Amino acid sequence: MRLRHIKGAEELIASNRFVIQDMEGMRGKHEHPLHIEVGTGKGRFITTLAELHPEIHYIGIENHSSVLLRAVQKLEESELPNLRFMLLDAAGIEDVFAPCEVDKIYLNFSDPWPKDRHAKRRLPSRQFLDRFHTILTDDGIIEFKTDNKDLFDFALEELDHSSFKLVASTFDLHSDPVLNEGNIMTEYEERFSSLGHPICKYIIQKTD
Amino acid sequence: MRLRHIKGAEELIASNRFVIQDMEGMRGKHEHPLHIEVGTGKGRFITTLAELHPEIHYIGIENHSSVLLRAVQKLEESELPNLRFMLLDAAGIEDVFAPCEVDKIYLNFSDPWPKDRHAKRRLPSRQFLDRFHTILTDDGIIEFKTDNKDLFDFALEELDHSSFKLVASTFDLHSDPVLNEGNIMTEYEERFSSLGHPICKYIIQKTD
Repeated sequence: MRLRHIKGAEELIASNRFVIQDMEGMRGKHEHPLHIEVGTGKGRFITTLAELHPEIHYIGIENHSSVLLRAVQKLEESELPNLRFMLLDAAGIEDVFAPCEVDKIYLNFSDPWPKDRHAKRRLPSRQFLDRFHTILTDDGIIEFKTDNKDLFDFALEELDHSSFKLVASTFDLHSDPVLNEGNIMTEYEERFSSLGHPICKYIIQKTD
Repeated sequence: MRLRHIKGAEELIASNRFVIQDMEGMRGKHEHPLHIEVGTGKGRFITTLAELHPEIHYIGIENHSSVLLRAVQKLEESELPNLRFMLLDAAGIEDVFAPCEVDKIYLNFSDPWPKDRHAKRRLPSRQFLDRFHTILTDDGIIEFKTDNKDLFDFALEELDHSSFKLVASTFDLHSDPVLNEGNIMTEYEERFSSLGHPICKYIIQKTD
């Protein structure tokens, strides 16, 4: 996503009632069931989920205040009670969620960090999977979508170095008769799939 | 749905490992989270959900063995660990689920029972909503879809005589920008919406 700095975004985020400000104070105290999206962007995906599933609590995590601002502005209009946001670098995710506190994690069109030396910054890397393993409940789920085939191949390989098992995967989500059912498209997904890029997806589950 | 008797269906259902036989013995002992579909038909809807959500336990309830047989045959092939069926008249649902045992109930294209004197047999009637209220967890959800406008109008009116609140509703699901996201079509829905029938849907939530 191209990032454009929006003047005053940090200040607006830092005082917004829909953004969790005392992130560490809330650690271990979130309501359940809790589903989070890491890299929530402008928030369409998680906002749609929150509208469809009022019984589930959602938190969208985003590291860029100018992008998060757009998601927050949408929530200002809908005032969904079960959706909140965090401005956070995902590397610090264990500081804001206690072990076994999160039921499901969504990763959508994460930054591919194409250089080898940046592999550990990729969200489906073994390093991040270890962090996600810690905060997920037993049998917790990660759903990951990307249009970057190299990143997806990497993600599948990393599973062998993790304590997750593959539940389902596809290299062409929108043609998959099962996985595409119930699919909720992100802004990015809609744009890139309309250009003919196939979307890859996996669902993985925490094991011991 | 037109029902055709299939010879031997009862016997097959009565000995099948994917059909819960000791329904009353399992009351209060089901695993969580638990989502059920009342009137599961040939089972495509709940089978798709079970494939997409391995962390959720699903039970499809159907009163007609010849129809349920089709759902069971599908499950014989996929052997999903998180999906089971019950052969049951929904009027007895409190005998097989304990209070607050079910997290979500799906009602899809339920029998409209058009005669006034049969109103209490309709699944979204106040009488059934009372039963569903008992077995649902606090904040539990019912999602109801139908192409029968009269039944949907009735269902909305019955809410005033129930302890459920309306979360969202539409008279044309497939044109609704939010509710249609993530929609999983049933066999019946696909056939009737392709003929131009709009689909109605509501999501309601248990209150005190």
